[in-house]
Amino acid sequence: MGVPRKNTAMTVQVGILGATGAVGQRFIQLLDGHPTFELAALTASEASAGKTYAEAAKWRVNTPIPDDVAEMKVTATTPEAVPNDVDLLFSSLPSGVATEIEPEFLHEGYVVSSNSSNDRMAPDVPLTIPEINPGHLDLIEVQRDERGWDGALVKNPNCSTITMVPTLAALDQFGLESVHVSTLQAVSGAGYSGVTSMEIIDNAIPHIGGEENKMETESRKLLGEFDGTDVSLHEMDVAASCNRIPTLDGHLENVFAETAEDVTPDEAAEAMREYSGVDLHSAPDQLIHVFEDPARPQPRLDRERGDGMQICAGGLHETANGLKYNCLAHNTIRGAAGASLLNGELLVEEGWV
Amino acid sequence: MGVPRKNTAMTVQVGILGATGAVGQRFIQLLDGHPTFELAALTASEASAGKTYAEAAKWRVNTPIPDDVAEMKVTATTPEAVPNDVDLLFSSLPSGVATEIEPEFLHEGYVVSSNSSNDRMAPDVPLTIPEINPGHLDLIEVQRDERGWDGALVKNPNCSTITMVPTLAALDQFGLESVHVSTLQAVSGAGYSGVTSMEIIDNAIPHIGGEENKMETESRKLLGEFDGTDVSLHEMDVAASCNRIPTLDGHLENVFAETAEDVTPDEAAEAMREYSGVDLHSAPDQLIHVFEDPARPQPRLDRERGDGMQICAGGLHETANGLKYNCLAHNTIRGAAGASLLNGELLVEEGWV
Amino acid sequence: MGVPRKNTAMTVQVGILGATGAVGQRFIQLLDGHPTFELAALTASEASAGKTYAEAAKWRVNTPIPDDVAEMKVTATTPEAVPNDVDLLFSSLPSGVATEIEPEFLHEGYVVSSNSSNDRMAPDVPLTIPEINPGHLDLIEVQRDERGWDGALVKNPNCSTITMVPTLAALDQFGLESVHVSTLQAVSGAGYSGVTSMEIIDNAIPHIGGEENKMETESRKLLGEFDGTDVSLHEMDVAASCNRIPTLDGHLENVFAETAEDVTPDEAAEAMREYSGVDLHSAPDQLIHVFEDPARPQPRLDRERGDGMQICAGGLHETANGLKYNCLAHNTIRGAAGASLLNGELLVEEGWV
Amino acid sequence: MGVPRKNTAMTVQVGILGATGAVGQRFIQLLDGHPTFELAALTASEASAGKTYAEAAKWRVNTPIPDDVAEMKVTATTPEAVPNDVDLLFSSLPSGVATEIEPEFLHEGYVVSSNSSNDRMAPDVPLTIPEINPGHLDLIEVQRDERGWDGALVKNPNCSTITMVPTLAALDQFGLESVHVSTLQAVSGAGYSGVTSMEIIDNAIPHIGGEENKMETESRKLLGEFDGTDVSLHEMDVAASCNRIPTLDGHLENVFAETAEDVTPDEAAEAMREYSGVDLHSAPDQLIHVFEDPARPQPRLDRERGDGMQICAGGLHETANGLKYNCLAHNTIRGAAGASLLNGELLVEEGWV
Repeated sequence: MGVPRKNTAMTVQVGILGATGAVGQRFIQLLDGHPTFELAALTASEASAGKTYAEAAKWRVNTPIPDDVAEMKVTATTPEAVPNDVDLLFSSLPSGVATEIEPEFLHEGYVVSSNSSNDRMAPDVPLTIPEINPGHLDLIEVQRDERGWDGALVKNPNCSTITMVPTLAALDQFGLESVHVSTLQAVSGAGYSGVTSMEIIDNAIPHIGGEENKMETESRKLLGEFDGTDVSLHEMDVAASCNRIPTLDGHLENVFAETAEDVTPDEAAEAMREYSGVDLHSAPDQLIHVFEDPARPQPRLDRERGDGMQICAGGLHETANGLKYNCLAHNTIRGAAGASLLNGELLVEEGWV
Repeated sequence: MGVPRKNTAMTVQVGILGATGAVGQRFIQLLDGHPTFELAALTASEASAGKTYAEAAKWRVNTPIPDDVAEMKVTATTPEAVPNDVDLLFSSLPSGVATEIEPEFLHEGYVVSSNSSNDRMAPDVPLTIPEINPGHLDLIEVQRDERGWDGALVKNPNCSTITMVPTLAALDQFGLESVHVSTLQAVSGAGYSGVTSMEIIDNAIPHIGGEENKMETESRKLLGEFDGTDVSLHEMDVAASCNRIPTLDGHLENVFAETAEDVTPDEAAEAMREYSGVDLHSAPDQLIHVFEDPARPQPRLDRERGDGMQICAGGLHETANGLKYNCLAHNTIRGAAGASLLNGELLVEEGWV
Repeated sequence: MGVPRKNTAMTVQVGILGATGAVGQRFIQLLDGHPTFELAALTASEASAGKTYAEAAKWRVNTPIPDDVAEMKVTATTPEAVPNDVDLLFSSLPSGVATEIEPEFLHEGYVVSSNSSNDRMAPDVPLTIPEINPGHLDLIEVQRDERGWDGALVKNPNCSTITMVPTLAALDQFGLESVHVSTLQAVSGAGYSGVTSMEIIDNAIPHIGGEENKMETESRKLLGEFDGTDVSLHEMDVAASCNRIPTLDGHLENVFAETAEDVTPDEAAEAMREYSGVDLHSAPDQLIHVFEDPARPQPRLDRERGDGMQICAGGLHETANGLKYNCLAHNTIRGAAGASLLNGELLVEEGWV
Repeated sequence: MGVPRKNTAMTVQVGILGATGAVGQRFIQLLDGHPTFELAALTASEASAGKTYAEAAKWRVNTPIPDDVAEMKVTATTPEAVPNDVDLLFSSLPSGVATEIEPEFLHEGYVVSSNSSNDRMAPDVPLTIPEINPGHLDLIEVQRDERGWDGALVKNPNCSTITMVPTLAALDQFGLESVHVSTLQAVSGAGYSGVTSMEIIDNAIPHIGGEENKMETESRKLLGEFDGTDVSLHEMDVAASCNRIPTLDGHLENVFAETAEDVTPDEAAEAMREYSGVDLHSAPDQLIHVFEDPARPQPRLDRERGDGMQICAGGLHETANGLKYNCLAHNTIRGAAGASLLNGELLVEEGWV
């Protein structure tokens, strides 16, 4: 294909790779009632193939399974098993599995918007947030050249990265030089069974394997320059400490940012509030909501803003060398299924689907 | 008195100002079985005066009230009401009340080891951790000259400060220049009724009034130089973000430290492990325990180490400009009652009592 | 007035007595977008009178304050301060205050649908759940005769009572003789500051003052016979044990019911599912949802069913002498503000407003 | 052997089958410093055999691994792998595994005090609590006759059963006829990974597979009569509803008991307080502590009483047909490892070891 074209069809047939897991369930919840995406394929492990979705999935989202989805048949996660007319696939496969399976679909020409963590830092894979770096999608050209794929693979960043990066993007006009960030992450980020109750009740865990590295590298790629061939990482230093705490949903983060130019808390708040959004169905009207109340944002009170797609910020203060502030996003919506969905909407809008 | 003298008496009569509150209860628990301190006075509000301690206090510690304490009479919080032979007072009064009442006792010649937050940054009030800056006690001479007190007022730092400062003290040999710290603080730090369950279950609050300022200033005083007359604040920059999370006890903190000299994580761990302790009854054998396991320390698993008096650290890693690591202390023992108690033991050891 | 008349006006002007508290906030949330009730009065303590609602209330519900409500002026809680054209008042005053103040409004002719616990067991005060005992509303005639009020006072039961009584009503066709019930109640039932985090994290409290008596008496009044003059209490024995647990919303209850006639779990489930609802705006389509999955209902997963107004049941099993099962309701919606609102809708429907 | 004999040796060599799991870790904690039991064997799965205990176990108890235990070698769970001089084995194997493996040890002549749930209701297996039915141990004679074992198998009841049965035993002098019980059970009862955080934070689960049946049957065996050959189940009816709540340790239970004779709450409290204990090392001085405060016992405040081996009760009240009250025990100490340990001490005392 090579040349992007505008999609003019009213309806896009979509599928979910790994549809029975926690993120898969969120995809189904978010796709319910979507104006243009029509759910046409649900894949899972061989053991689930042939069952109805209601039989195959242990549904744990707090809204009921949509009736039509409950009766859909689940297929194996292979290109042969997926109907030919599916235009766009969302992937929430475990990264180990995704590494093997996503390329099979790409060879067959599928466009895949993936939440899996594999290949996010690969030079020819766009890592995108539609409001931040939509232009990186053009890496797909490079990707096709290098890999010989007819399809296209686009990744969204890790949930802890995506919580912070919109606020950094808003501040980058002042010249970001150094970022220190500590996270207070919800247990849902580890998947349904990722954190046992014995581990986390009356406790906190100052370690999430691989998470700090993801924040430190993905954020620099997201804010990096794309010259048509390569994305050069942003030059800022990022140091992250990641913690798991006893909250269900919503990652809260403390950011300390140092910029080349002086910036007051008011100017920073203004920059965040005015940071432009995108006109896509699942995007919030305003990308970043900034609270005046220094005790906000809080996970339970604020994670649902903008249907879980808005970034919240607050507590802006000067430090000796820059600014400190807090930010929050819903980790399984804006930080996972919603992120892939929004990338899917961008892929359609930009004509890649 | 002016000149410090070694206390040679076997027993020191001690009292607690504000004995019925949460920190007061911890004092009683920690003093139970103390080899040299004998509890001789318990004060509370006028309303409680004349009652037995068991009647006056709503006991919430998970060990029973010591039998002899249960039957002691509570007095009002005035110098007249306290027996003359009390040598040392521990204060856990609310800071607003302490501002008024502590000076009354000091005028009457009492030595007060206080956990209340008032006057911690006053130039003539020693703010001490026995293992860190015992020499600052000599500020008592200045204090007596300036205020005309016969007694002596010594403060311990805030619970969030005391969790971090021992690790910083160990690193200061490499020339501390800049510190960023995020805290994950337990609800007990706000007092028994300070955080409602509706506020904190499935949530986190990125704001604790005044806490960040305490960390940013107290830490610089604790590590400051004392020239016999003044304590000059340490020159490092400290920026803190403080959060309340749903844990009962134990403050966990993420520290990012930049030093003039390069220091590897191994060297930093070594410096922490070897940082010397003090030979006082309530002090742990080793001040700082450093974990190899990157997932430790954790509040519930590690807060009781050294009977709640040891500092724990772990997760040491290099960053672009320095180090990051995590530290933990029991906020109502090492961070409050135990801190005052240890200062009291130092006051006796150094002859001020 | 004496004789009920059908209300034919399209819009009913309503007010909230005690509008700034936790239940008051729920009233505002539930009234937002109500098809016939128009919010026209908000009362609070003298200290709040004259402020806008946004200033007077510390808003803690997880949806924003409706814009028009935010700007409304709060008045004192006196008949003089409330606009004359208000037709119906919802009361969420503390019961001690309500005992004094509700009669003042009743003397002035206001119809009050009250969630406050005072007077629930008074012989001339209807205690109603619209789906269970709507006919008890006619006690208003008795009430007016006895008290000389022009207005009318209707109460809804306590949150723990209302969770269980619909299931009992469905089983009463089999002749209820004895009920044992244990409750697992959410912290919101005690009000925003009623349960501190130190009390309840990693804990449970097997005592809620007065709660057991409420369940034991209110349930018998709700299921009692009304002969036009008196409500005779249902003859069943009820024994309740009430516990507070660390959940935010949703009371879960274990019921053991003994009936005169044998009834199988299937027959009981059928009776619950078929128990008829009412055709009022805030009523759920089906009063009781019965789960097949023995692990349901669960507070977090099921409390929002029917917008928080449906009763859930599950786990039906035979015992030696009867049945056991579990039930659940949202305690601050179906169990408080939603209960009063539904009674208000019934009052309008039946012509008392 | 057949005839019980008094053990006169000072030291008993003990082993733990399934030593690396959660209950296995509790055994090790409880055996540390035991005056007569010397730990001589630790078994686990084949994969762990040959490793040191520190390598094989993921230690999660909040006291450090005893130094000598850390260095012990773990063996496979087979009679051949266990040293011959081991006198007594504690079993905390999963019940499916225990069904296969315990008989192998019994054939080889080992005495096994087992916490595993298999065979608890077998007619020839003593199910004992030393303070309640020590005489049931003599079933070992029957067991040896029937099974041809040289060893002996003794079981302790399920954690939820053992919490309630001591209070029932104390009341049985008044003629127990009917018991209804609801439980609020801690997550540790399901093992370290048994309950995920996503399942239980801000939630409760009204179902624990098989648990209700265990309470309903085991309690009747424990209080049953042993005639030298058979244990006849107690005739009382028991109906149980079991719930999981977000507490870490400590099962709280609401009991409704009906007795043939009238009994007042004071008489019941007296009967509980005076119920006689046993003179074994791990037994509490008083079996049942009865609180006056109706809000006690509470899991976090009271589970550690008597080093986790005391039963707590409170909230005694009359009901229409009997009594209601609450009871509590530490589920992994008195309800699991401590229960087996105490049975082991009884086996030694009675000469079976």
